[in-house]
Amino acid sequence: MKALTWHAPRDVRVGEVDPPHLVDPLDVVIRITTTAICGSDLHIYRGRIPGILPGTVIGHEYVGVVEEVGPGVRRFKKGDRVGGAFRTACGACWYCRRRLYTHCENSMIFGYGLFFGSLQGTQAEYARIPFADTTLFRVPPEVTDEQAVFVGDTLGTAFFAAEIGEVQPGDIVAVVGCGPVGLLTQMVAYTYGAAKVVAVDRIPTRLAFAERIGCIPVNIDREDPLAVVNRLTGGRGADVVIEAVGTEVALTLATRLVRPGGVLAVIGVFAEETFPFPIREAFLKGMTVRHGLANVHAYMEEALAMILHGRLDPSSLITHTLPLEEAPQGYLLFDRGEALKVILKT
Amino acid sequence: MKALTWHAPRDVRVGEVDPPHLVDPLDVVIRITTTAICGSDLHIYRGRIPGILPGTVIGHEYVGVVEEVGPGVRRFKKGDRVGGAFRTACGACWYCRRRLYTHCENSMIFGYGLFFGSLQGTQAEYARIPFADTTLFRVPPEVTDEQAVFVGDTLGTAFFAAEIGEVQPGDIVAVVGCGPVGLLTQMVAYTYGAAKVVAVDRIPTRLAFAERIGCIPVNIDREDPLAVVNRLTGGRGADVVIEAVGTEVALTLATRLVRPGGVLAVIGVFAEETFPFPIREAFLKGMTVRHGLANVHAYMEEALAMILHGRLDPSSLITHTLPLEEAPQGYLLFDRGEALKVILKT
Amino acid sequence: MKALTWHAPRDVRVGEVDPPHLVDPLDVVIRITTTAICGSDLHIYRGRIPGILPGTVIGHEYVGVVEEVGPGVRRFKKGDRVGGAFRTACGACWYCRRRLYTHCENSMIFGYGLFFGSLQGTQAEYARIPFADTTLFRVPPEVTDEQAVFVGDTLGTAFFAAEIGEVQPGDIVAVVGCGPVGLLTQMVAYTYGAAKVVAVDRIPTRLAFAERIGCIPVNIDREDPLAVVNRLTGGRGADVVIEAVGTEVALTLATRLVRPGGVLAVIGVFAEETFPFPIREAFLKGMTVRHGLANVHAYMEEALAMILHGRLDPSSLITHTLPLEEAPQGYLLFDRGEALKVILKT
Amino acid sequence: MKALTWHAPRDVRVGEVDPPHLVDPLDVVIRITTTAICGSDLHIYRGRIPGILPGTVIGHEYVGVVEEVGPGVRRFKKGDRVGGAFRTACGACWYCRRRLYTHCENSMIFGYGLFFGSLQGTQAEYARIPFADTTLFRVPPEVTDEQAVFVGDTLGTAFFAAEIGEVQPGDIVAVVGCGPVGLLTQMVAYTYGAAKVVAVDRIPTRLAFAERIGCIPVNIDREDPLAVVNRLTGGRGADVVIEAVGTEVALTLATRLVRPGGVLAVIGVFAEETFPFPIREAFLKGMTVRHGLANVHAYMEEALAMILHGRLDPSSLITHTLPLEEAPQGYLLFDRGEALKVILKT
Repeated sequence: MKALTWHAPRDVRVGEVDPPHLVDPLDVVIRITTTAICGSDLHIYRGRIPGILPGTVIGHEYVGVVEEVGPGVRRFKKGDRVGGAFRTACGACWYCRRRLYTHCENSMIFGYGLFFGSLQGTQAEYARIPFADTTLFRVPPEVTDEQAVFVGDTLGTAFFAAEIGEVQPGDIVAVVGCGPVGLLTQMVAYTYGAAKVVAVDRIPTRLAFAERIGCIPVNIDREDPLAVVNRLTGGRGADVVIEAVGTEVALTLATRLVRPGGVLAVIGVFAEETFPFPIREAFLKGMTVRHGLANVHAYMEEALAMILHGRLDPSSLITHTLPLEEAPQGYLLFDRGEALKVILKT
Repeated sequence: MKALTWHAPRDVRVGEVDPPHLVDPLDVVIRITTTAICGSDLHIYRGRIPGILPGTVIGHEYVGVVEEVGPGVRRFKKGDRVGGAFRTACGACWYCRRRLYTHCENSMIFGYGLFFGSLQGTQAEYARIPFADTTLFRVPPEVTDEQAVFVGDTLGTAFFAAEIGEVQPGDIVAVVGCGPVGLLTQMVAYTYGAAKVVAVDRIPTRLAFAERIGCIPVNIDREDPLAVVNRLTGGRGADVVIEAVGTEVALTLATRLVRPGGVLAVIGVFAEETFPFPIREAFLKGMTVRHGLANVHAYMEEALAMILHGRLDPSSLITHTLPLEEAPQGYLLFDRGEALKVILKT
Repeated sequence: MKALTWHAPRDVRVGEVDPPHLVDPLDVVIRITTTAICGSDLHIYRGRIPGILPGTVIGHEYVGVVEEVGPGVRRFKKGDRVGGAFRTACGACWYCRRRLYTHCENSMIFGYGLFFGSLQGTQAEYARIPFADTTLFRVPPEVTDEQAVFVGDTLGTAFFAAEIGEVQPGDIVAVVGCGPVGLLTQMVAYTYGAAKVVAVDRIPTRLAFAERIGCIPVNIDREDPLAVVNRLTGGRGADVVIEAVGTEVALTLATRLVRPGGVLAVIGVFAEETFPFPIREAFLKGMTVRHGLANVHAYMEEALAMILHGRLDPSSLITHTLPLEEAPQGYLLFDRGEALKVILKT
Repeated sequence: MKALTWHAPRDVRVGEVDPPHLVDPLDVVIRITTTAICGSDLHIYRGRIPGILPGTVIGHEYVGVVEEVGPGVRRFKKGDRVGGAFRTACGACWYCRRRLYTHCENSMIFGYGLFFGSLQGTQAEYARIPFADTTLFRVPPEVTDEQAVFVGDTLGTAFFAAEIGEVQPGDIVAVVGCGPVGLLTQMVAYTYGAAKVVAVDRIPTRLAFAERIGCIPVNIDREDPLAVVNRLTGGRGADVVIEAVGTEVALTLATRLVRPGGVLAVIGVFAEETFPFPIREAFLKGMTVRHGLANVHAYMEEALAMILHGRLDPSSLITHTLPLEEAPQGYLLFDRGEALKVILKT
């Protein structure tokens, strides 16, 4: 089958690889119809993830059609149109039984090479999906591939962010970062009842997008987000702050924006091991800080329902749609910051 | 001062009564600028509430300006523009300290005559507001009187309904009843994250309003709401059902619509003492049923924030605006079902 | 193998039946070491459950050792010492993925004959356990069979009752009914933080047991439980009331005991279809009523941890331990009210 | 009146000062019968709190009898036996109306000199209590002064710790630190349903106390707490970890003890501004971290109910009871680590 493989930093190629087949009774094999390039694929592309061997098929966002079904699978049959999570969850271990799917003891991540179970990526014509009953969801006919491909990763993460941020109706929410996950989190924060969302970034096109979806855009280079938040809240601070960047500067800002008794959700991925956390300010503020590897499995069907009923549309983030053969071009565009979201059609 | 007084069933008059003055150190007196006729005023109008003596000033929805301030009041000063709850809450008793304001041990209701503390109503030029710090809220300049007048009663009740109904993002919600509270509950359910709201009634104009705010309207005379809900949920039933009518027929329907493990919120006011509750079905479904005298004080500021930031607009329900002098005409229209919401300006 | 079979009202016999074997890839077969007679077995014994054919093996409380393991089972292997829930849960359907195991779309109940999947009962030497990964739990060596046999039914139900009753630290809790489930609920309510539990019944031995575990016993024939509760709460009423009887009299009492804003959990099983629910009082009180078919799967491991660490001991309820051969004698004792809990050893 | 005043590091004296009187309509003045020395008083004693002027009356734990009552006070009258929080809460500001009393915009702390409102301390014969309705609680006759004196500070903090730690029935809880607050937190964790509490410290007498109340004591100098926690949890880590020391070493240990998806409550008071937080580990673990200035007002009545009904007894921590005149001797003993809790009687 055709697939995108990684060979060296900034060297990805489309070529032929062996197609996957059923291995475990709980597997399915799907024929992929739509896949996408995620921000974390960019880390691989740039050579920052150790353990990716040359020739690895990458990618972990996908929609497709079930082709083969293991004998233990209960929820899916051949021909079903499905999407799924960026990582598998067994559904039976201690964590899965408590809906902490992201901590599944048997989890594997798609397209990360030697790590997390060496599962092949989804920027390919076919993919093996272990633990299909818990990893996949059924796509209703009214939902397009271009919408569903967001559900199991970036949109699921946005729901997770709103959930751990404990967004309540009437809240003033600040989201630091307007990348794809940040923008989706802003959309989702409104569906969780935010009265107003403040969107912080420095890239004008992203801020313009945030403004279009109803946020107050704050360009960190020109304006102090704390002043904006204080104006909105009578000086209290934001009820919820979501850090969606993953840098010390962004997180430091985020801790300053949250009000006493408020919640800070940190979903940005940090390169550093430690962060100089303002422990004294956190004490005086009585701050709750929630960190998170996104537990997307818990929100996929709810996210899908919101798309189905027109409450939000993640596909508005798509800037480029390419055939799988042109995936390397998509990586190039994304790497240069010229694309917000690249979709690949097989 | 001028005020609307009740004299006999369907006999209300506007005339002169003694103006109120400060009684307790925690009182304020406000000059009312906007008041409204509530569905429960109609019960009084029709003579169904015992204990209303002829001459009683009625009404309990209000926006105004603070005129006099008791020495113990901490949050308000002369000249503040305010709205407030339909009943007072002391802020200090066992219930108030747990935010169960509606069960306040010292609560008084405006305009109910001998009951609940004999507090004069607000369809008048002035009103005394006991326990002002907990009963009132400040109205931001961007919010109109016509919006704010809903906050302390019908809109607060709608927030309460969504809250006790435990509406979650992605939920399918059914609201039985499209009166003012039902319609507002539908709006609020969306801000709590409902994916889709099914609105049940039999009055075409009300159903049309529900459809305009994004609901699936179901005319009970023509269609089975259970069939609609089952179609939306793959046969499971609604995640949340809110009963906003107060009749045996409506509540029986509501119990049938809720899915296993779902929540039924009963905010309709029943004339009967008992209801033949389907105890066996509730057991098999593992149903949660929440009953409620609306705890509006807990949601007033959040409701106001939603209006301020354009997330919802209760004033879209207003069909008639009259001067206080013509209040009897407003009652007549409302009584005949020709008005959805009547506003009175002083 | 040897098993207890039902033949007619009050006619149960121990004899030979065909042993079970693996049917589905997710099955295990266990050799039962300890089983018990449950209150619901008594309904079958007395002939009140339609659809139980003569010759049906009954019983649904069990501890045993895994003998055979289906190829899809991930958590258990031959030789594991296990207990389990009174009904199976598939772990993959819509409800199971939301931890509403009791509403599992594929659930089967042990020992109920034609109903719920015709699964053979556990008052036998062997049993087939479908969906073993979600239905079973591992028994630590420090926990006895006599303790573990309660976990998957009566004790799990007690945890469920405390959970849906929303028992909070400092609460005054009233439990109406001191049968096995009622008494266990009282124990569990203390572990959930109840400050004091009021135990209502009319059988002196049961009330004496309740008193020994720290409750205030109230003999309904001699004392008004409302007076006791009011004395404890300054007239407010109980924060949480748990109905564990299943009669109109008991539930009516329960509704009267709960304070404004409080919670009533109804776990008693009613013979009637409807109950004349005091809808007006519920409205005025702002009552939450939770009904429930016990979702025991969600609490089994927590219940086990409490036993393991000595926080509670359900085996204190055992009044009789008999060999399986003498099971008919156990039924007789239980039917006559001479036994509180009968354990059967194979 | 007689009172303990601070003069210089390790120089406190008992002498005559002016008695307090009513200032605000919401004040009461109480005659103190029992007061105590808190760990934070030791910081003042040692001269580490800036802004304490010589001659300041210190202390903030107290039980007494109401002597004078302001005209706006609704819950208390002369002669009432009361205890109260270590800081006042107005009950009316934005935070108080959301039960975030500790962030009260008008809060004053007793006995901290120039800070937080310059309110006189309670190691004296009389004290003025502002905002009495929200700051005080009534002491039932069955509860001793020696029990009630813990409620408004150390015991309230322990409840707060268990609450923000989200202790659930069945949890394995680790408490790092066995000072008075740590030990009380261990007691309270059991009332919140902990299956087992691991208590970490290095002082043998404190560890022995922890063992007596049912904890597994771990002497950090001899044993690795992580190994103990892993043994109890099959290698997962503690469900909840509570840091009650306030040092980098203790907090670093605490972050290692918490399981994936678990909660870390940080109640220790840090001298440092920042802490090198393991941001990457927190991300991978999906950790929730809650910081907190104790919101004791929200738990005082629940704590009192637990004492009243014999569920816990904080007075077991008392090692010394002295007359107020000998308070300097009490400080000396506490400073040297020879006392766990010193009570002062007036």
